Amino acid sequence: MINMQATIERIREILDDELLSTQLSDELNVFHSADLADIFQELKPEERLECFNQIDEEKAAEMVEYLPPNLQVEILGDIDSEKAARIITKLPHDAAADVLGDMEEDETEAYLDSLPQKFSDEVRELMNYDENTAGGMMTPLFMRVTPDMTVKQVMDYIRKEAEEDNIDLYYVYVTDKQDHLLGVLSLRSLLTTSFQTQIREIMNADIVKLHIDDYRDAISDVFMKYQFDSLPVVDHYNHLRGIVTWDDAQDAVEEETTEEIYASSAISTGDIDEDEMLEGSLFTSIKARTPWLFVTLLGELVAVNVADCFGKTLQALPVIAIFMPLLTGLSGNIGTQSITLMVRGLSTGQLTMGAALKQILREGFIGLLIGSLFGILVTIVTWGWQHNVELGIIVGAAMAINMALAAIIGTLTPFVMKKINIDPAVASGPVIATVIDVLGLTVYFILATVFLVEIL
Amino acid sequence: MINMQATIERIREILDDELLSTQLSDELNVFHSADLADIFQELKPEERLECFNQIDEEKAAEMVEYLPPNLQVEILGDIDSEKAARIITKLPHDAAADVLGDMEEDETEAYLDSLPQKFSDEVRELMNYDENTAGGMMTPLFMRVTPDMTVKQVMDYIRKEAEEDNIDLYYVYVTDKQDHLLGVLSLRSLLTTSFQTQIREIMNADIVKLHIDDYRDAISDVFMKYQFDSLPVVDHYNHLRGIVTWDDAQDAVEEETTEEIYASSAISTGDIDEDEMLEGSLFTSIKARTPWLFVTLLGELVAVNVADCFGKTLQALPVIAIFMPLLTGLSGNIGTQSITLMVRGLSTGQLTMGAALKQILREGFIGLLIGSLFGILVTIVTWGWQHNVELGIIVGAAMAINMALAAIIGTLTPFVMKKINIDPAVASGPVIATVIDVLGLTVYFILATVFLVEIL
Repeated sequence: MINMQATIERIREILDDELLSTQLSDELNVFHSADLADIFQELKPEERLECFNQIDEEKAAEMVEYLPPNLQVEILGDIDSEKAARIITKLPHDAAADVLGDMEEDETEAYLDSLPQKFSDEVRELMNYDENTAGGMMTPLFMRVTPDMTVKQVMDYIRKEAEEDNIDLYYVYVTDKQDHLLGVLSLRSLLTTSFQTQIREIMNADIVKLHIDDYRDAISDVFMKYQFDSLPVVDHYNHLRGIVTWDDAQDAVEEETTEEIYASSAISTGDIDEDEMLEGSLFTSIKARTPWLFVTLLGELVAVNVADCFGKTLQALPVIAIFMPLLTGLSGNIGTQSITLMVRGLSTGQLTMGAALKQILREGFIGLLIGSLFGILVTIVTWGWQHNVELGIIVGAAMAINMALAAIIGTLTPFVMKKINIDPAVASGPVIATVIDVLGLTVYFILATVFLVEIL
Repeated sequence: MINMQATIERIREILDDELLSTQLSDELNVFHSADLADIFQELKPEERLECFNQIDEEKAAEMVEYLPPNLQVEILGDIDSEKAARIITKLPHDAAADVLGDMEEDETEAYLDSLPQKFSDEVRELMNYDENTAGGMMTPLFMRVTPDMTVKQVMDYIRKEAEEDNIDLYYVYVTDKQDHLLGVLSLRSLLTTSFQTQIREIMNADIVKLHIDDYRDAISDVFMKYQFDSLPVVDHYNHLRGIVTWDDAQDAVEEETTEEIYASSAISTGDIDEDEMLEGSLFTSIKARTPWLFVTLLGELVAVNVADCFGKTLQALPVIAIFMPLLTGLSGNIGTQSITLMVRGLSTGQLTMGAALKQILREGFIGLLIGSLFGILVTIVTWGWQHNVELGIIVGAAMAINMALAAIIGTLTPFVMKKINIDPAVASGPVIATVIDVLGLTVYFILATVFLVEIL
């Protein structure tokens, strides 16, 4: 990894100084294209343009692939269109399709027309698919051979073909004359088998494959699970249409994780692109954030109602009100901890439904232990501060009970949601937070009413 | 993906019925080893043992690799030790090292002695490294060639060598006689260059490599960033020691994500293995969960103090107390949303420090919009319910102000933490939740005191 701070300063220094301008190109071209992408994100638009023109086109194309969509469009829009076209042609088909897809309609068309016919046709086809499906993620370039070829023939074929366009050579794919996928062949087995062997003998016919309509979450699951370098994509007729490589899958995994993390804090990006949340329209953000907040609103209104039912207690002893945030705050936190552990465990597969009871007991016990510890602390603090031992004990006891309750509810709910086929990640958080508030306050007020108000 | 429910039922059916027992082996061996691993996690220990003995050893070894550590140890402990030894020998070195590392000391030694000398020596070496470092994650098996060899020679060499043990053939690594790493060569370039070409001419000498002491988070960053299939691992003297393959890196990425998610809900697994949180000792869990809860405790005690300062207001108008959970609950939620968006954005690189101001304004505005909307709702509800329009307006206004404040604080804090080089993920959550409680209640009580108590 590089020292971003220093690098940026160095580049700005060169940009500002006429005399150094000749050095810019050398300075930039030593970086790996992934590093360049990081650097470019830190630069100002005008700085980006100036630097971009100093990078060799090969490297520039590699870098563009690493840039976030908005920057890809910005830069390709700023440089002259011939160069932009040349760079787009150097991108893998799926990347080119994404970039062109993010441009204005007319821009896209202009570029597509200016690109080499074969390339633009292939890209046009990819653009027909949702970029979150296998169709949108796949590249149509791969090695296709027939089962009757020999290892020698395939190697000669690869030597000839792979030269032409930059084909990903993770595997060689075996199809019949009608393009039906028959098997997969690793370069490994190709390199370790005698030249005369027929492909049919060494190909793996028991194939894990993606369907062209498979959605991002399914694709990321398959890659995470089987850990292949790349997977073939077939259509309804088992025709081989393209391959998805693991680096594209990696992005899918990252986006899925983001969605999971968002969901866990009540941001529901169902049909919304995650990027939208930080750069999209305000309306989109509000649309994604309001629903669960509204559920919280309803839940908390119930909590308000609970508190109201104990209005008499509050009138008799207003001081008990001041401990409400303490109780709700801490119960909420330990509950969230439990939810997070369960949701993540279920999503990584470390937890199975069978583990539910064990975890509920475990978490309940942990909650009780921590709750009691904190309860004692609070008792002491309250006692020493309000000089009211009964009040201290009540608050402390409520603390212990509420934290245990919170941990149990936080553990139970994700399992229940999973059981009834609701994604446990989806806003377990806010819903439970309110449930905990309601229960917690009830416990507290009952204790207070019975033991404090009575004895007054 | 398979239908787990049905599969498990089918297997239990066979296990229960003597007559079907012969079918078990056929039923099981058709599954991909990754699917088998999932199935095994759902089975009971005794069922696992019975099934395991029905799987071909090749596939059994593949499956063991996909199992979580605790199950690996359980199963290898249950089957007879010769078979266990044979299976361990079939594992990649890094996997074998992990499994043996998770066993009891004496068990480990017993196995290591029973394994083939060469294999057990290589595994012993890996076991010297922390399993979360490149040294612990690497496999010592890879293709090593010298720069003066020709493509033809390398291909013949691979054909001979790769046969012997299952070497990962992502790349071929070029070293000098003293094992110094000189370059990397993709199978692709090997397959697409003429036989006579010298390796030196086609190898890539500008190498991204891992150091043997590199820790998991660094490794996962490098893989996520450069998206290589595998990376060479060198020691202090640039001696090539092994390679880390992307599927191992994938696990590292997953564990890093888990740590990030845990941190975001105040579970600090600094030196604790994530698995410990669900299966380890209670003490470990409490150790990881208490620190930030304690911080919350202190924060909420401040909130209690704030409320206490307005004791007179509460006595004059106890009803205002019942709205406290409503205000703290909703502010907490929208604040958490903002934190999550920023923390994730900063960790995926979608957000840079430069974006701070823009995001703060954006989030603040969103908070104000949603807050006002909810404020109006609350005003109406309170009005209709408590028949007290002033109270309604105060609660509503507090709601709008607090939600805007919460969003701004939730956005600002992660950027500040990052600026002062604290991981923004680490418990931004609970700290801010309390800050929001304190500020929120202050705002509410001031409004209530000024506008309600005065006018009484």
